[in-house]
Amino acid sequence: MRDPLGRRRLRLGMVGGGQGALIGAIHRLACRMDGHYELVAGCFASTPERSRSSADAIGVSAERAYGSFAEMAEQERCRHDGIDVVVIVTSNDLHFPVAKAFVEAGIHVLCDKPMTMSVAEARELAAQVERSGVVFVLTHNYTSYPMVRAARALVADGRLGVLRVVQAEYPQDWLSTPLESAGQKQALWRTDPARSGPGGAVADIGTHAMNLATFVTGLRLEAVAADVHTFVDGRRLDDNVHVLLRFGSGVRGMLWASQVAPGTTNGIRLRVFGDAAGLEWAQENADRLYLNPLGQARQILERGRASGPAADRLSRVPPGCPEGFVEGFANLYDDAAELIWAKIEGRAPDSDAALLPTVQDGLEGMKFVEAVIASGRNGSYWTGLDR
Amino acid sequence: MRDPLGRRRLRLGMVGGGQGALIGAIHRLACRMDGHYELVAGCFASTPERSRSSADAIGVSAERAYGSFAEMAEQERCRHDGIDVVVIVTSNDLHFPVAKAFVEAGIHVLCDKPMTMSVAEARELAAQVERSGVVFVLTHNYTSYPMVRAARALVADGRLGVLRVVQAEYPQDWLSTPLESAGQKQALWRTDPARSGPGGAVADIGTHAMNLATFVTGLRLEAVAADVHTFVDGRRLDDNVHVLLRFGSGVRGMLWASQVAPGTTNGIRLRVFGDAAGLEWAQENADRLYLNPLGQARQILERGRASGPAADRLSRVPPGCPEGFVEGFANLYDDAAELIWAKIEGRAPDSDAALLPTVQDGLEGMKFVEAVIASGRNGSYWTGLDR
Amino acid sequence: MRDPLGRRRLRLGMVGGGQGALIGAIHRLACRMDGHYELVAGCFASTPERSRSSADAIGVSAERAYGSFAEMAEQERCRHDGIDVVVIVTSNDLHFPVAKAFVEAGIHVLCDKPMTMSVAEARELAAQVERSGVVFVLTHNYTSYPMVRAARALVADGRLGVLRVVQAEYPQDWLSTPLESAGQKQALWRTDPARSGPGGAVADIGTHAMNLATFVTGLRLEAVAADVHTFVDGRRLDDNVHVLLRFGSGVRGMLWASQVAPGTTNGIRLRVFGDAAGLEWAQENADRLYLNPLGQARQILERGRASGPAADRLSRVPPGCPEGFVEGFANLYDDAAELIWAKIEGRAPDSDAALLPTVQDGLEGMKFVEAVIASGRNGSYWTGLDR
Amino acid sequence: MRDPLGRRRLRLGMVGGGQGALIGAIHRLACRMDGHYELVAGCFASTPERSRSSADAIGVSAERAYGSFAEMAEQERCRHDGIDVVVIVTSNDLHFPVAKAFVEAGIHVLCDKPMTMSVAEARELAAQVERSGVVFVLTHNYTSYPMVRAARALVADGRLGVLRVVQAEYPQDWLSTPLESAGQKQALWRTDPARSGPGGAVADIGTHAMNLATFVTGLRLEAVAADVHTFVDGRRLDDNVHVLLRFGSGVRGMLWASQVAPGTTNGIRLRVFGDAAGLEWAQENADRLYLNPLGQARQILERGRASGPAADRLSRVPPGCPEGFVEGFANLYDDAAELIWAKIEGRAPDSDAALLPTVQDGLEGMKFVEAVIASGRNGSYWTGLDR
Repeated sequence: MRDPLGRRRLRLGMVGGGQGALIGAIHRLACRMDGHYELVAGCFASTPERSRSSADAIGVSAERAYGSFAEMAEQERCRHDGIDVVVIVTSNDLHFPVAKAFVEAGIHVLCDKPMTMSVAEARELAAQVERSGVVFVLTHNYTSYPMVRAARALVADGRLGVLRVVQAEYPQDWLSTPLESAGQKQALWRTDPARSGPGGAVADIGTHAMNLATFVTGLRLEAVAADVHTFVDGRRLDDNVHVLLRFGSGVRGMLWASQVAPGTTNGIRLRVFGDAAGLEWAQENADRLYLNPLGQARQILERGRASGPAADRLSRVPPGCPEGFVEGFANLYDDAAELIWAKIEGRAPDSDAALLPTVQDGLEGMKFVEAVIASGRNGSYWTGLDR
Repeated sequence: MRDPLGRRRLRLGMVGGGQGALIGAIHRLACRMDGHYELVAGCFASTPERSRSSADAIGVSAERAYGSFAEMAEQERCRHDGIDVVVIVTSNDLHFPVAKAFVEAGIHVLCDKPMTMSVAEARELAAQVERSGVVFVLTHNYTSYPMVRAARALVADGRLGVLRVVQAEYPQDWLSTPLESAGQKQALWRTDPARSGPGGAVADIGTHAMNLATFVTGLRLEAVAADVHTFVDGRRLDDNVHVLLRFGSGVRGMLWASQVAPGTTNGIRLRVFGDAAGLEWAQENADRLYLNPLGQARQILERGRASGPAADRLSRVPPGCPEGFVEGFANLYDDAAELIWAKIEGRAPDSDAALLPTVQDGLEGMKFVEAVIASGRNGSYWTGLDR
Repeated sequence: MRDPLGRRRLRLGMVGGGQGALIGAIHRLACRMDGHYELVAGCFASTPERSRSSADAIGVSAERAYGSFAEMAEQERCRHDGIDVVVIVTSNDLHFPVAKAFVEAGIHVLCDKPMTMSVAEARELAAQVERSGVVFVLTHNYTSYPMVRAARALVADGRLGVLRVVQAEYPQDWLSTPLESAGQKQALWRTDPARSGPGGAVADIGTHAMNLATFVTGLRLEAVAADVHTFVDGRRLDDNVHVLLRFGSGVRGMLWASQVAPGTTNGIRLRVFGDAAGLEWAQENADRLYLNPLGQARQILERGRASGPAADRLSRVPPGCPEGFVEGFANLYDDAAELIWAKIEGRAPDSDAALLPTVQDGLEGMKFVEAVIASGRNGSYWTGLDR
Repeated sequence: MRDPLGRRRLRLGMVGGGQGALIGAIHRLACRMDGHYELVAGCFASTPERSRSSADAIGVSAERAYGSFAEMAEQERCRHDGIDVVVIVTSNDLHFPVAKAFVEAGIHVLCDKPMTMSVAEARELAAQVERSGVVFVLTHNYTSYPMVRAARALVADGRLGVLRVVQAEYPQDWLSTPLESAGQKQALWRTDPARSGPGGAVADIGTHAMNLATFVTGLRLEAVAADVHTFVDGRRLDDNVHVLLRFGSGVRGMLWASQVAPGTTNGIRLRVFGDAAGLEWAQENADRLYLNPLGQARQILERGRASGPAADRLSRVPPGCPEGFVEGFANLYDDAAELIWAKIEGRAPDSDAALLPTVQDGLEGMKFVEAVIASGRNGSYWTGLDR
């Protein structure tokens, strides 16, 4: 799917991501990379004026800069050149209503995580998506790194043997101080229960780590026992969670997500151990995967070199030329384009593209968030995701 | 204390550590390094013949090769050239009776960990040691690495600010297969409850990780919530534990100890995070310590270079010339010699030497083992170390 | 310059880079990333048919797919919507004639390295560019990595003190076997003197390492003593060069470029030592820079974290989210757009954008190639770049 | 040879290494480690009083503390309990006369490097050693690291294929400032031609790097082209050398030795590339060896784990428990004991022990020093080691 192949570009709309927003800009970089998308419409802010101002800076025409996502869904549905797909990069509280509106309009959806504010919303959205038949992709971008795909393939091929232990972590340090008190925009909404939902670190980054662990292992997370804590005085959501994990097939593990760990930046990292080998991947060293067969020399698999077809498929530049975060996101856009074209063309999509996180993954993520918080409130007792 | 300084060598006896034993040989290397000890007696096996055979290979005279530790304690107590100090490197079940016998004989003791088979034994031994006035050192050797001392000093000096999170781990892979079924000597006793006690991985290596965490932070571990598991079929003790930690002052943490994690070897590693900085040390890269002040460049502190006096004191060779495991053990012997000489000479010991793990640390270790196992048996409930 | 800012996209033409070409595809990724360029014309092959076939796959209209670069320069010069800038990604032999044609047409030029086939050609081109006033950028892409800019700033700010030693290297392994005999396209032209010029590894990658060294240090390379060798039987150009370096101000150094070093991939790496500190950067770990002040802790500077304004200016995503090769190239395109817009708008460009490699750097590169080869042929005698 | 095996300890004498000397203390640590030696005599200083004072601190009896090495050789030769072996750890100027005296006395010799002050002296000593039949070991300690032995075995077993390129380096930074002007003892003699000989960095550390390269590859160094420089004002010997290397069989390489490279400590490091694989070893990460077969995953070989018999033989503690500099030195002492016992017992020594550097290696080292200096003085022209 890397090359446009003579197809027209998919018409993309964006909700959220106006001026000053971090993740919106990254999405714009990523969707441009391979030339499959053209950003043509957006609801970049909650008033028409501010939305148009962002549209102008971004290069979207004023007429398709909306102040209301509902209006955008409606108008774009009616245009002959309406958007094919919308990407939702708002604060968490809007994911659900916005997604619903666009799914209802028959428009494909890329949605940021955590998917909703609750399991109940997630179930409702999942049901709606299934009824509608639109493509729904949750932007768990880390699963689109080439060496994460390689890790998944190694597990699936049995190279680790019978799985036993999973160690996942995602430490950051940017909330080590009460940034929200200083009015920092990202910190403000991410520590506000009304906009972020019931989970702080657990929802914002814990869901990424949990998703990565289940993606690579192919296991389902069944239960958690969690210690949920807020270290920064006055903060209204957790900023550190320690979680014991029980997966299917008797696999055990741990997950640590923190926003108050000085010296860590974006330290999402996964280790998986079976009875035949262990593997390790860390996002800050994204192009390498460590595979350690029991009793043998450790192996460093590099993207593009002994990395296997699942990784090579997502590789743009030669080995030794680092790819990273933007490319990971672009891979997600690339595979999403394949899913959308397959839908448009009435055919089955490429099976690797079909690995993209779905609305069901979003539901599992919300179950994780609620189970962790419930366990934390109840003496860390084991809490099933399907309680 | 590095140089013998004209003092005679301390006369050292050993219980355990006969032919084929791993840790006994390491103790002999370590005690020889700085020339403060001479190994002159031993109960290397449970029969006089086998004990003498080991003594011969080791270079200890036949007359001081005992087949019974009780006889050894008694005879050495009576000799005018009797041993000053005994090191106990037996299986865990013998630590307590052997230590008791030598303490009773007024002989100083270095004892391997875990200190006893139970908290009850540990309390009894602690009381006896305190009454007797002998020097008792528990061989938590990792606390004698120079950069661990440097880490402790950084925390004590407030360089990390107010502590928040502690992540400790100790993965190995040597028990990934049922080695004990194949008759491997180390595996046999370490997986046998009668010789190892109630804990497997938690006692053998978990206590090291727990001790390291409390040593560096100066915190007391107050409670644990644990998932205790045995992955290898037929094994009679745990081979993997996941533990949530609560320390004094509201510090939270995690500990993972595993003997079934392929690709790890002796991966004891500690990360500590405060509100001002984080630090990280891993034994396999022992001469370096990572200090990460919030928002600033990461720093790599190397032994002998910006490592501070607590580390420099234990440094034998210049920076860039790696020191490691044997030197760490030798530092423990070195500091123990200072404690013993101080006792003999009736003076206060060097304050850094006095940081060596004591019988009280052994008691805390046993509380940890019992609390982890109790928590694991009771749905991972939070279990106080002083329940 | 990251955001399009309401300006139209610059119209870009490409010479070379047709189907199967590696570097052309990378340029297309890079130029798309920030939305400043639109690829609208190309001479992708030497016949109109093949050029149109590539144009079709790439998404360029057939009418602007040329079979001759001369025709392309002429036609594009005459169109009211003719290209603003051309990028030359052909084999080395065409760099000079193509560049000349477009400079003559008053079209700005981005040109791959080595700039020409000889110093004589390079001098002629440099003179022509200076007369014409067009923007000419040589695609030494490694100088556009954020942490390379940070390294340059540290040196310029005196943080290393008086410079002494420069160690540069660029090992690869892709030509360890006679790939050209197997007909591999990249290997074929890169080992063919008629298409690559007099230098093999020295020209293809040695010039990158030499340029990086002079860019970061601000020094001029004055003389070389070189051992130039071809290891693979039958190969017609060097595949390994070892070079002693003498820079201005008495600085000494070494440079190693190799295409036959198994296990290396794209290992361009620079170390610079002054009397106050040393620094180190390696492309395969592009987001980090090691700064080692004499006698103090080593420092790891990360992009976006203590990396300084020169790096931050070129940073797209937060620290901990790796940027890499494509972003480095995109930075070059970004800064080139600023140079071109400044020229169009009749103003001075941003001073950091003006750091881009120029036609003069291309001339220095050719002097380096010829001096290394001359030295290699003459017993490794010291050979001045301005002999 | 690790265990004493019931043999008596070899009686060891030391020349040099008195109080304040760095390397003498390391030798004492190393020789004690395995219990094969007892230090019983020494000429620790050039007056009897100072020698006795050091002897007292070290634990050598006053009667065998000599003020003259000649007297020591004579007296020890005559004693029935005279030393078996002497270790020479003086400044370079004394290596030759001291070695001669002890060889003449029929006493085995361990001698620090560089072996002599000139090739002429080296030739004379080599001839004398061969006539005498004593064991002579040059303390190129880096060749006794387990993973260096593993590297050598890999090359010898053909795992790298036909060798092509050798990159050796040994940077340090301790002489970045004029320490000798401040009276620092180590700096004083090492920068004094009368005590160090004609080479500074080239002799002190360059010989180590050169020896390591030839040891691992089994190649002979045939010619050098060198840039020899002194960066610190007023220093009388070189503090930085850059050297092009030509080995037998057409292998090319580079060597960099520097004492003025801030941020490096004891950075001896070797990379070897053949047509089938490359390998890399760095002393500061001594327990690991990187083996990179062309086109396959990189491999990390760890001491004790997939490291092979040549490394395992020299391994004391389990994998994951770092060994380092002292153990490397102790291995040399261990193998030297085997050579000496074999001589005493009239048998062939263990073939791995026989890999220890000999007087011939010392001669090659001096040829290297003289060739580098000659080349440096003569415009870096290629200079044969056997000119």
